[in-house]
Amino acid sequence: RINGDRLWDSLMEMAKIGATDKGGVCRLALTDLDRQGRDLFVQWAKDAGCTITVDKMGNIFARREGRNPSLPPVMTGSHLDSQPTGGRFDGVYGVLAGLEVLRTLNDLNYETEAPVEVAVWTNEEGSRFAPAMVASGVFAGVFDLDYGLSRADQDGRTMGQELARIGYAGDQPMGKPVGAYFEAHIEQGPILEAEDKTIGIVTHAQGQRWFEVTLTGQEAHAGPTPMPIRRDALLGAARMVQAVNRIGLDNAPVACATVGLMQVYPNSRNVIPGRVFFTVDLRHPDDAVLAKMADEFHAALNEILAEGKLTAEVEQIFYYAPVPFDADCVAAVRAATAAAGFSNRDIVSGAGHDACYLAKVAPTGMIFIPCIDGISHNEVEDAKPEWVSAGCEVLLGAMLERANA
Amino acid sequence: RINGDRLWDSLMEMAKIGATDKGGVCRLALTDLDRQGRDLFVQWAKDAGCTITVDKMGNIFARREGRNPSLPPVMTGSHLDSQPTGGRFDGVYGVLAGLEVLRTLNDLNYETEAPVEVAVWTNEEGSRFAPAMVASGVFAGVFDLDYGLSRADQDGRTMGQELARIGYAGDQPMGKPVGAYFEAHIEQGPILEAEDKTIGIVTHAQGQRWFEVTLTGQEAHAGPTPMPIRRDALLGAARMVQAVNRIGLDNAPVACATVGLMQVYPNSRNVIPGRVFFTVDLRHPDDAVLAKMADEFHAALNEILAEGKLTAEVEQIFYYAPVPFDADCVAAVRAATAAAGFSNRDIVSGAGHDACYLAKVAPTGMIFIPCIDGISHNEVEDAKPEWVSAGCEVLLGAMLERANA
Ligand SMILES: NC(=O)NCCC(=O)O
Ligand SMILES: NC(=O)NCCC(=O)O
Repeated sequence: RINGDRLWDSLMEMAKIGATDKGGVCRLALTDLDRQGRDLFVQWAKDAGCTITVDKMGNIFARREGRNPSLPPVMTGSHLDSQPTGGRFDGVYGVLAGLEVLRTLNDLNYETEAPVEVAVWTNEEGSRFAPAMVASGVFAGVFDLDYGLSRADQDGRTMGQELARIGYAGDQPMGKPVGAYFEAHIEQGPILEAEDKTIGIVTHAQGQRWFEVTLTGQEAHAGPTPMPIRRDALLGAARMVQAVNRIGLDNAPVACATVGLMQVYPNSRNVIPGRVFFTVDLRHPDDAVLAKMADEFHAALNEILAEGKLTAEVEQIFYYAPVPFDADCVAAVRAATAAAGFSNRDIVSGAGHDACYLAKVAPTGMIFIPCIDGISHNEVEDAKPEWVSAGCEVLLGAMLERANA
Repeated sequence: RINGDRLWDSLMEMAKIGATDKGGVCRLALTDLDRQGRDLFVQWAKDAGCTITVDKMGNIFARREGRNPSLPPVMTGSHLDSQPTGGRFDGVYGVLAGLEVLRTLNDLNYETEAPVEVAVWTNEEGSRFAPAMVASGVFAGVFDLDYGLSRADQDGRTMGQELARIGYAGDQPMGKPVGAYFEAHIEQGPILEAEDKTIGIVTHAQGQRWFEVTLTGQEAHAGPTPMPIRRDALLGAARMVQAVNRIGLDNAPVACATVGLMQVYPNSRNVIPGRVFFTVDLRHPDDAVLAKMADEFHAALNEILAEGKLTAEVEQIFYYAPVPFDADCVAAVRAATAAAGFSNRDIVSGAGHDACYLAKVAPTGMIFIPCIDGISHNEVEDAKPEWVSAGCEVLLGAMLERANA
């Protein structure tokens, strides 16, 4: 019932904004390219007859009115920002699948009971501004507005400043009633493709803990400074990278533990590094195991500090417990998948999604489609058109069920 | 005989150019601050009656004429560029001690037989542009001019472009006869201070090998990507940091092995790093051991590559064998030290110096003074005024012996 070609064409059109040489996308949150992506979405949504509102965190809502405007909207959405070396589907797919739902309803002159809205959430990736999903987090009351607007990038520019600069500092207050929220997304992992399933019925998302660590030693000359008296912050950081990896392996099979970002100071070839900043990302679907992993991380760090050569500042900057999605919404996704006859399996999300925060304020469900080789956060990220269509079809079915309930 | 207060005041005056909050200096090669430092030196040298020439690598020569202008000059010098978090003495001391020698000869109306020159060598540190001592290397015929001018910083700006920009792309051809070369420098290590010696009579400099390594794996999402299938370039780099440190420790007591610089791509908290660039600096006074250390480095890298997850590009970008200084020049330093009655010991330089390349084309010697806690390449780098005076006194004595020989 949805128009798969139209959805695909819109995805490819959006992918031109920030396109990279390797076929990916670099459209960091609140850059000029993000603005261009937002402007294109807003234009398309207006062309589809929607009214547009923007809240103080720059979240965009495109609304198609229902028979009963006083009902809380059934909402879908995702994000348009990308990783520095991101792909054409992560986030964008959920936004444009939502738009395709609206366009399909228009084609059919279909009037839903509740209004239907497509949301574009600001800075989901957490790459330019940490943490991830900060704007859906403010929407859901997990963070307050000041916290959200004051998140700064590595050059010290805040989300508040950058929202104003690109013209997306909206006037709507944060948060509003949502009847149900669905988010379609690529899996970003290898399970569905490996098992040849078209749809992942997402029952949970794993929990996450993010840390920032600064290790401080002493800068000294790489030539005349004897090895035994060195206080090499990079050596400490290197040991932590291995410790974090070990924590991931030791809590197999589902644990993930990653050091993704590292800055070395002064970063000069013949200077023993005096300071290293790095981040740690720990994930597990079981909150108790996630806490144990955090303990293991602190223990590994303390072991290095106990040697007396380095000092550390360490802060947990992001935590959310594993998220169970709403039973009725999961059932709606399951029903729509069955009605369309798509192969499927239940799945736990390894990534965080705006849906994880929406789940705090609305019944929420998610739909996964496979991606090639399970690769995401990579320019080669790819998906087959039939998967893209299938996920959107399921999204339409689930939303209609709830919008007419 | 030299004027210690005048030398100290000049050092403190020069230290204002690029002064940092922590009392150090950031005056990277061929920046505007480097130009200001050069301009100040040139002004002082002209005030002392010198003629100034600049060669095509931007090396500056301040000449005080001798009785016999056709004799090759007795030269001293060092550099004015610093590390990003550098100190007030590294390099600058050798330049301004040379200037103080000229000023003292003026005070005494002393005419040397051979001309005396003070050289300022471009980009000794090798921090903004790798490798180190590149301009004295071109002067000594170790590198050709095109190589020197094409060295680029991390933003792709070449030494040739930057020399032109700051007005120090001189017209003198590279290289000229030098009767003898002496360089005064802080030790940059802990030995002299620990043994309470004022003067280090430098007999050798240890050899160095610098490598650049790029490890490539695959970027992927830090959440849904199972640990066992990851191709984490930072994990490989972290293991190499530890391997390099182990090579330094295993070749104790004099070996040094350092990873000073590392760049992680895409450097995003929730992306498994797909690529890491890092540098390796290996040093040893025995060329055979230095070669063995390089073998150990390659073996450690190959062990990681053999696991089949990462690929590597590796290049040795800098090598020089350990340098024995000239017996007569060392003897001149020893005699001047004895004449002044300074406590002293023979010492091997752990750092590279322009003197290491000058040694290829002229009889060369070096004079070390202690630095506080042996700390250099650090903003807290410090030296006592009496050490600073003593080293200059020895420099004067050694230069006079050779200039009148
Ligand atoms: N879906 C996605 O890539 N989200 C980014 C936040 C995370 O790292 O889980
Ligand atoms: N003296 C000094 O710091 N030279 C820099 C080159 C080296 O790393 O040895």
